[in-house]
Amino acid sequence: MRYIVGIDIGGSNIVAGTVAEDGSELLGLVSQPTIAEQGADAVMQRIVKLARASMAQARGKEIAGVGIGSPGPLNTKTGIVLLTPNLGWTNFPLRDRLGQALGLPATLDNDANCAIFGEWWRGAARGSDYVVGFTIGTGIGGGIVLAGKIYRGVSDVAGEIGHMSIDSNGRRCKCGNDGCLEAYASGPAIAARAVEGIQTGADTSLPRYVKDDLSKITAQIVYEAAHDGDEYALEVVHDTAKFLGTGVANIVNIFNPEVVVICGGVTLAGAKLFAPLRGEVKRRAFKPAVDACRIVPGELTGTAGVYGAAAVFVQRTWGTV
Amino acid sequence: MRYIVGIDIGGSNIVAGTVAEDGSELLGLVSQPTIAEQGADAVMQRIVKLARASMAQARGKEIAGVGIGSPGPLNTKTGIVLLTPNLGWTNFPLRDRLGQALGLPATLDNDANCAIFGEWWRGAARGSDYVVGFTIGTGIGGGIVLAGKIYRGVSDVAGEIGHMSIDSNGRRCKCGNDGCLEAYASGPAIAARAVEGIQTGADTSLPRYVKDDLSKITAQIVYEAAHDGDEYALEVVHDTAKFLGTGVANIVNIFNPEVVVICGGVTLAGAKLFAPLRGEVKRRAFKPAVDACRIVPGELTGTAGVYGAAAVFVQRTWGTV
Repeated sequence: MRYIVGIDIGGSNIVAGTVAEDGSELLGLVSQPTIAEQGADAVMQRIVKLARASMAQARGKEIAGVGIGSPGPLNTKTGIVLLTPNLGWTNFPLRDRLGQALGLPATLDNDANCAIFGEWWRGAARGSDYVVGFTIGTGIGGGIVLAGKIYRGVSDVAGEIGHMSIDSNGRRCKCGNDGCLEAYASGPAIAARAVEGIQTGADTSLPRYVKDDLSKITAQIVYEAAHDGDEYALEVVHDTAKFLGTGVANIVNIFNPEVVVICGGVTLAGAKLFAPLRGEVKRRAFKPAVDACRIVPGELTGTAGVYGAAAVFVQRTWGTV
Repeated sequence: MRYIVGIDIGGSNIVAGTVAEDGSELLGLVSQPTIAEQGADAVMQRIVKLARASMAQARGKEIAGVGIGSPGPLNTKTGIVLLTPNLGWTNFPLRDRLGQALGLPATLDNDANCAIFGEWWRGAARGSDYVVGFTIGTGIGGGIVLAGKIYRGVSDVAGEIGHMSIDSNGRRCKCGNDGCLEAYASGPAIAARAVEGIQTGADTSLPRYVKDDLSKITAQIVYEAAHDGDEYALEVVHDTAKFLGTGVANIVNIFNPEVVVICGGVTLAGAKLFAPLRGEVKRRAFKPAVDACRIVPGELTGTAGVYGAAAVFVQRTWGTV
């Protein structure tokens, strides 16, 4: 059995793990904050250190290569990251730099593609030929996996389903578009909606969770308050389900997928989110498409991107996965 | 050279033509109103008659089969149309009935899929591996053609891009969803928006085009008035470009296509629509995806569905097209 180091580079954290080529084992799972403010070189050094730490924990195993998942846009053929404002990379040859530093062959793909590919390989979408997934965190990314292959589009930038407008005159998104799903249902957007309601007089216990410092309200705190029975927090979760439901219904009508996987912190809201989300999709999308589709949370919490980055290496190098 | 009868069944018209297997020739193009109110059997008889009329005009050619494009949802494997309220068909074995009536092998696919497949085969999207198309008429349909194959999803109902919500609290659509693109930018929706503005006092010459009978305003009349210089009609066209632009931008961000084809009556608006439409997409979608994508009107006006239905037969029967 050969092993691959999978690396998932996120805006907040870098995660690495050493994955068996058939996905049956994940060894040496390690993680560190990204600390992007320290600059591109520091981030690069941290990635190398983390990869080595993971390999050290998998001592004795044959390491065949490195699979990297990174924020994009990027070019999977040349291995170059075109532009990641957060990480300070412009036209950065991440794949070759990292491969050279580790003395291993390497592959590069988009982080959200890797996460959904991981869920297809070893997680909630195993065995499905028509998979679309949302990765919901600081932003909303997406991955499309058709017949066991990541769908990348003509120039490697497909799958930006978080930047589907669900309100053509709606909330301004960082990307410049109006009404993107991300502007309503990402972690920060959920928190921002909650705070807006509090500032306009909502009756809620939410401020008590943050000692009245509203800038400390996060999506997680909203879910916590909803679980504790706060009616307003529950309303924010229901609104989230409605926005997400609009986006998922669009994807169901467009792709007629077998499974839609929802990954990321938002899954912490559990049934309080998924029940109204499924209801909203049912109300909005075509019945034959709804009937054919499961809408499920990801199963590989925190590791989907690592599995997927390794799976991309396996597929690119040995053809099958 | 073998020939295939391509049949495009629409809510308003049925069109048939006899197409060379390599798409190089279209003979015996015939058309009749559908007159759906006369019931399923009458429509069926009209289709058979029309197919025979087309074959008669292609006398001497070897006819190898029939390709049918029909409104859906339908099952391409069994050849059964599940439900078309307009045509009165429920679980109707259209493919086998028509094949038997004509004594020819037959294939069945969704009408919008056929139209976009036709544009890929012989029209505006020739040679492209990543194609998404909109068919804009009484409703808005869509087709996705990837690597020369129609993308159908897990249960044959993919491609309903007209039922992508672009305003989660927006105009009610006939399908039950809120804010579908179809509810803003289909022919009747364009007319309805124009009439609403007139009823609330817009300064426009539009009523003169219909002798003050506002129920007679159509999208075509709006384009005509816009061409004649009516400022309000031009505004309605610009709003249409904005709504369509939102939908196309979503598709560009999701699919990273090489070409987006816009088919149907809306293309009559010409540059007055396409210039602001391209501007809107550029403003909204990611630059690398916009740069990779042409947004073009369909080239096979009135015949895309016939070409595509024939191409589906060729591909299903002989493997290549």
